[in-house]
Amino acid sequence: MTSSASNGQQALSRFRELTRTLKQYEEILGVVYWDMRTGAPRKGIGQRSEAVGTLSSEVFRLSTSDEMGELLEALEQPNTYAELSAIDRRMVEEGRKDFDRNRKIPPETYREYVVLTSQAESAWEEAKEKNDFPGFAPYLEKIIEYNRRFIELWGAKRTPYDTLLDMYEPGMTTADLDRLFGELKARLVPLAEEIASRGEKPDTSFLQGTFDIGAQKKFSLYTLKQMGYDFEAGRLDESVHPFATGLSPGDVRITTRYLPNDLTSALFGTIHEGGHALYEQNIAEELVGTPLCTGTSMGIHESQSRLWENMIGRSRVFWQRYFPELQKHFPGQLDGVSAEAFYRGINVVEPSLIRIEADELTYNLHIMIRYEIEKLLFNEALPARDLPEVWNAKYKEALGVVPGSNAEGVLQDVHWSGGSFGYFPSYSLGNMYAAQIMNTAKKKLPKLEESIAAGDLLPLKEWLTEGVYRHGKLLQPAEIIERISGEPLRSSYLCDYLEGKYRDIYRLG
Amino acid sequence: MTSSASNGQQALSRFRELTRTLKQYEEILGVVYWDMRTGAPRKGIGQRSEAVGTLSSEVFRLSTSDEMGELLEALEQPNTYAELSAIDRRMVEEGRKDFDRNRKIPPETYREYVVLTSQAESAWEEAKEKNDFPGFAPYLEKIIEYNRRFIELWGAKRTPYDTLLDMYEPGMTTADLDRLFGELKARLVPLAEEIASRGEKPDTSFLQGTFDIGAQKKFSLYTLKQMGYDFEAGRLDESVHPFATGLSPGDVRITTRYLPNDLTSALFGTIHEGGHALYEQNIAEELVGTPLCTGTSMGIHESQSRLWENMIGRSRVFWQRYFPELQKHFPGQLDGVSAEAFYRGINVVEPSLIRIEADELTYNLHIMIRYEIEKLLFNEALPARDLPEVWNAKYKEALGVVPGSNAEGVLQDVHWSGGSFGYFPSYSLGNMYAAQIMNTAKKKLPKLEESIAAGDLLPLKEWLTEGVYRHGKLLQPAEIIERISGEPLRSSYLCDYLEGKYRDIYRLG
Repeated sequence: MTSSASNGQQALSRFRELTRTLKQYEEILGVVYWDMRTGAPRKGIGQRSEAVGTLSSEVFRLSTSDEMGELLEALEQPNTYAELSAIDRRMVEEGRKDFDRNRKIPPETYREYVVLTSQAESAWEEAKEKNDFPGFAPYLEKIIEYNRRFIELWGAKRTPYDTLLDMYEPGMTTADLDRLFGELKARLVPLAEEIASRGEKPDTSFLQGTFDIGAQKKFSLYTLKQMGYDFEAGRLDESVHPFATGLSPGDVRITTRYLPNDLTSALFGTIHEGGHALYEQNIAEELVGTPLCTGTSMGIHESQSRLWENMIGRSRVFWQRYFPELQKHFPGQLDGVSAEAFYRGINVVEPSLIRIEADELTYNLHIMIRYEIEKLLFNEALPARDLPEVWNAKYKEALGVVPGSNAEGVLQDVHWSGGSFGYFPSYSLGNMYAAQIMNTAKKKLPKLEESIAAGDLLPLKEWLTEGVYRHGKLLQPAEIIERISGEPLRSSYLCDYLEGKYRDIYRLG
Repeated sequence: MTSSASNGQQALSRFRELTRTLKQYEEILGVVYWDMRTGAPRKGIGQRSEAVGTLSSEVFRLSTSDEMGELLEALEQPNTYAELSAIDRRMVEEGRKDFDRNRKIPPETYREYVVLTSQAESAWEEAKEKNDFPGFAPYLEKIIEYNRRFIELWGAKRTPYDTLLDMYEPGMTTADLDRLFGELKARLVPLAEEIASRGEKPDTSFLQGTFDIGAQKKFSLYTLKQMGYDFEAGRLDESVHPFATGLSPGDVRITTRYLPNDLTSALFGTIHEGGHALYEQNIAEELVGTPLCTGTSMGIHESQSRLWENMIGRSRVFWQRYFPELQKHFPGQLDGVSAEAFYRGINVVEPSLIRIEADELTYNLHIMIRYEIEKLLFNEALPARDLPEVWNAKYKEALGVVPGSNAEGVLQDVHWSGGSFGYFPSYSLGNMYAAQIMNTAKKKLPKLEESIAAGDLLPLKEWLTEGVYRHGKLLQPAEIIERISGEPLRSSYLCDYLEGKYRDIYRLG
């Protein structure tokens, strides 16, 4: 072995050790966050947050250390890099990306920003409750200002906003999104208008009523089991805002929220988070303990939650099989309802003000509005104070509705208070990925509908595991979709799917 | 400010920072351990254990680092030390003790021992289940061997076993324990014999039956509230082996175990762990975040769990007030029983084989046997293979019973599999401390019985907070008991208490 090869070996082994430690600390922090959101006692939160801050800073320190920089440089030497396995190469690539991104931010600035965003979340909660946009605006302005500075430090890509997009969806650009959203808008806005003016509105009266929480819980657990969620590698709990957290493939937890007057909230929330969880539970063994053991992007992650929630959970064939099971869980409450009526009822389309309550069709319009606003903020220097006006105008234009208050308008989402600019497009990207993936699934699994009708969701889960889940972050989002479908992401699959589904439901011919 | 004073200031501030970080990491590890014992998914345990191992090693590394050694030396300089506050002095003392103890063990040896004891716990579980002492003996021999080596590295105190004792009860020696246990034996063995031969046995038939788990839960929660356990700073969960864990005074969690056929197991288990929890919840604000924010010793900690469980929870006055509440929780099941009959029933004395099922009187004999055996192991080189024989002979002598198998004999306790030699005496020390503390409480709080009878347990809790809880580890165990009672620990209070209680219950006159 030459001396440089031996140095390369040493660097590799130390790099693996260091990234494993970082991953382990993140897993431990994940347990603590899960605990804080599911039932940690109130009075301990202050101390706990400080402890979390200390360990997080240690993670930041290790990941931006001189040692990490030297290891990356050593492994990037052409001779050494050429010898690396595919996994090690991706680890080096990801390590470099994080290192460069984080090193460019002075630790002091990072700390200020962490403090600011944690204060801003409380300020946002209060402002939303009191419908007080001016109370939240100063925080929002500062957070935007920090993000503008970060973009400068990181270096703007084609446009400044591209730099933010790339954090959540590597390789995605405003040029791509302008085109994709343009295509969606061109087909979905007319469809929504046609439904509003001519469609035969499904009955939803049977969704009103009081639904026993215990029975809701049981049905949530039942549905997860049907999906192939592994309860020996996860658990279902309750929290105010439902979430999924993949601590390791052997421990992927989800939460949901049961509302006595709303049967569908917990049900579809559970399936949604269950989709995220299937992804994380089925990452390949060889990636466990490495930084590649996670979803490859927010868009691909959302594709799995939304595929399971909407394309399976809100499909006709699913309810043909499972509606009798649902009826059994709520004796007497859904007696006169047919599976078909239920299917139509849970797919009602209605232009609305609130994103998280939107139907599958208009949901993308909510996202498009946010995308356009974020572009204005970072590419056109729109001042934060103008947000309510711009927001309301865009809702009027795209959905024909105007918020009665900022609480149900610009203040409705938590994302901006945490500085997550560039995240929203992931939801629509998820819908588009999901439609393209399902289009392929139907070709590759010719008996897919039959197996769902027979109550066997596992063939789909296994196929998704092969195509998506097991690769973790080893493949880029664009590689995933190309390998599965043989082409890059296209908006047409989503448009075709939504047109087909809603023309049928609304009997538009 | 002189340069040495300024160096002292710098060292102090860095020392505080370092010990705070260590405390924070321990808090985080505490959350992860709690999670592993209350419901973490099985398949994630492997990864989780490795993550815990990494963070624990970091704690070990920081606490034995050259930097820690230098800081301690700087702060121990007479001029600097003289300027320190009481809290900082105790932190330096404790830091020195841990540092010396841990630095003397080579990190490699420490790691081997951690691996050995974690394997040994599974081996013990299996051996206990299969009644297979020879299967466990090799582990036990190695663990004893490591502990003998540790004692050599640390340096034996008056006897080698004294070195182990000091870990759990600082300052406690075999000389003290020989005397204390001798006194207990002299008074408690004859009392147990008198009860066995002449006592009028209380009726316990009403403790048989099936007791609704939901009602047991409710009564556990009710009892904790009565004790002044703060549910905004804690929570009650279930686990196979009940425990209490103080993550910070704002988050002290307890677990219990509900058995459908046993009303008293969860009830007294909850009160026991609740006693531990009151201690941890009420440590003074000024100690929060420091290494002094914990119980001062295992003996004092057990004194609080056992005081609440036995001296309150198994007292006549307590059940005069609370038995009607218990009856309400189990309608129809305890109708013909009087508070007095219940009190006598839960205090039945019976020589038995299993420590954790023992009554308050014979419990101390179980501990004495273990203490004598541990002395033989470390001071007389008793080989591990001889343990069953010695165990059985001692049970015959002290309690008049002989285990039918090693599973209900020498294999019954988990402690030795984890290397916790020197821990057992804490239980009897706890009983003695508790009796001495309660003896003072009755003098200092003349209306104590009245307030308990009126359902007000808070005056006792507050008095214990002043005398014990708030001091955390700032005071040594000997200081605590001297300050409260004006004298050192004596066995006579426990003997007096048990004689008085059981002569009355058994009507021995």
